Amino acid sequence: MSCYEARLEKMWDWMACEGIALLVFEDAEGRRDSTIRWLTGHPGDALLFLSSARKSFLVPWDIILAKAYARADMIIPYGDFDRMPIRAIRGAAEKLKIAAGSKIEIPPETPYPTFLEFVGELADFDVICREKSAASHARNLRAVKDAEEIAIIRRAAGITNKMIDLLEKNVRSGKIKTEADAAMFIEAESRKRGCDGTGFETLAAGPDRSFGIHAFPAWTAASFAGQGLSILDFGLKFGGYNTDVTLTFVRDPSPQQQKMVNLVEKAAKLAAESIINGNETTFPALAVETLFAKSKKRLVHRLGHGIGLDVHERPYISNRPNEEHEEFVPGMVFAVEPGLYDPIHGGCRLENDFLMTETGCEVLTAARIMYL
Amino acid sequence: MSCYEARLEKMWDWMACEGIALLVFEDAEGRRDSTIRWLTGHPGDALLFLSSARKSFLVPWDIILAKAYARADMIIPYGDFDRMPIRAIRGAAEKLKIAAGSKIEIPPETPYPTFLEFVGELADFDVICREKSAASHARNLRAVKDAEEIAIIRRAAGITNKMIDLLEKNVRSGKIKTEADAAMFIEAESRKRGCDGTGFETLAAGPDRSFGIHAFPAWTAASFAGQGLSILDFGLKFGGYNTDVTLTFVRDPSPQQQKMVNLVEKAAKLAAESIINGNETTFPALAVETLFAKSKKRLVHRLGHGIGLDVHERPYISNRPNEEHEEFVPGMVFAVEPGLYDPIHGGCRLENDFLMTETGCEVLTAARIMYL
Repeated sequence: MSCYEARLEKMWDWMACEGIALLVFEDAEGRRDSTIRWLTGHPGDALLFLSSARKSFLVPWDIILAKAYARADMIIPYGDFDRMPIRAIRGAAEKLKIAAGSKIEIPPETPYPTFLEFVGELADFDVICREKSAASHARNLRAVKDAEEIAIIRRAAGITNKMIDLLEKNVRSGKIKTEADAAMFIEAESRKRGCDGTGFETLAAGPDRSFGIHAFPAWTAASFAGQGLSILDFGLKFGGYNTDVTLTFVRDPSPQQQKMVNLVEKAAKLAAESIINGNETTFPALAVETLFAKSKKRLVHRLGHGIGLDVHERPYISNRPNEEHEEFVPGMVFAVEPGLYDPIHGGCRLENDFLMTETGCEVLTAARIMYL
Repeated sequence: MSCYEARLEKMWDWMACEGIALLVFEDAEGRRDSTIRWLTGHPGDALLFLSSARKSFLVPWDIILAKAYARADMIIPYGDFDRMPIRAIRGAAEKLKIAAGSKIEIPPETPYPTFLEFVGELADFDVICREKSAASHARNLRAVKDAEEIAIIRRAAGITNKMIDLLEKNVRSGKIKTEADAAMFIEAESRKRGCDGTGFETLAAGPDRSFGIHAFPAWTAASFAGQGLSILDFGLKFGGYNTDVTLTFVRDPSPQQQKMVNLVEKAAKLAAESIINGNETTFPALAVETLFAKSKKRLVHRLGHGIGLDVHERPYISNRPNEEHEEFVPGMVFAVEPGLYDPIHGGCRLENDFLMTETGCEVLTAARIMYL
């Protein structure tokens, strides 16, 4: 059984329990869902339908791409449905022989006005759109990586670590002088080493701009790694899977800057110690928030997040009251990124990727604070 | 009056007509809305509230960034509301003195399950979520650029044209040999020339990969511009505004490849001739579809799309039955991109950006088919 089949089986089992006749997944501009890639290998825009008769039906935007990458029982180009979701759903219901009156579950991201339209147009079916959905079930499953995924992620992390060493070497030697040098080096080197590229726009911020959580613009022609704190946040995408790390380069720090760096390093250590199988994912976030609060500082973003086909996915490691919390379990892969930001002194962030194993938490990446 | 004030005035006038007491805009991961930047200058994640008393209230994720870029009557960090939308809405209603029972309009992209939650939590207000929303009104307004925007877009187009010439020169001289060379040249050169960077991941596809509408991966270390058809689709972002052009490089084409190229060039010419003030935006799309159909080919994507703060925005130039069509009017800026793709012969696309003026359609960019 391929990894795709094994994943589909899990979704079909869930459908049987829930009494769903037809499941709809959508990956489109503005509403991305990597679950389609996870279930079929198809890396681009598409609709995916799963039926209770355990059949998969893919409707890709680019049929040539689908033929090269996708596995599904049936593949029909979106153009055959005039690129209209409602026509594709109707077509799928017909081809997959979904009986009138049965349950069709649409993505929980479906906007309210679109939901109303679907309910009207699909009046002969029972249209379901809910938070505790097939999509969220898939995202829960995806939070725990299977053996195939862990193998890919280990390779991605290996290339990332090589990249970190090269970045350090080139910053120290003066070969990387600007934010652009750093970002472009990562772009070029990642492809040479077999990556699809970077998973998100590299954030390279010299001392004048490192105050931003996400530097804006992401990188410029400005100098990098001069006096003060410089942040370099990047991720590689390998076989579809993302890494996500942040280095801080420190040169001749002021006392305030040194204090920030020390606190971030302490937070990273504390967070890593709090990541224990069975612990709630809120636990390390609360620990870091408490540590920062003692120094009258504040963690202004999540402490961490799962990584995989998406750069941000489950589990979310934060203490936000509105986020679903979960327990650390073996197979989870995530980034932890304590950071502090100051409009005058700049910012410092340290981010590494972790894998939960049966015997505890394994650090996959070797991001570090680099003193110049 | 600044351009931001002028834009806000239009939204407040609309609110008065519609009897809306509080408008909510959201720009977040997975649900981007550049209207917040258009109304306030703030380039990052945020909630924006507008009240019927003509006040603006921004709730940014990164307060330091907001202080550097945003204009609003009130700015309070998202952290003060525990980064929970519902708490921020409650806070805004209180600070902006919105009377109980009055209308609060939330974004039309609000997922159905979230909508239900909001309606429950905001039971003392009349919560509205609709297709013909404030957000869509803003997007309609944004389709017609104001003088400030046109000035920025002209500068973006100028840099894009310089880039096209440099790309041609460097491909011809052999300085650009690989997809990576092309993509990296654009990244570096765009920043040197004052751009924020590229507006989307450059698609550089040599002859073996140009069959994909959107090459996957976007660019690799593979060779570029060898025998056959190579596609280079890129856009620059300058002052927040995007250009979007596609060049096709042709070397020793086969008869089938030459036929595709001729047809795409003919389509580009035909499309440009069909763009006339007062014409429906479906018109050029239908013309190109008809032209392709005569050669038993098919246009497998939209013919074009508006560009601005987003890479894809109104007006949409397509013949899709489910898209809102509109008429070309002065001030619209858009990309037109006829293309043909074949799994064996590869792909060809030609994309240029246009501005509607009082006297007709002006080509802003100089993308072209380049014979090597």
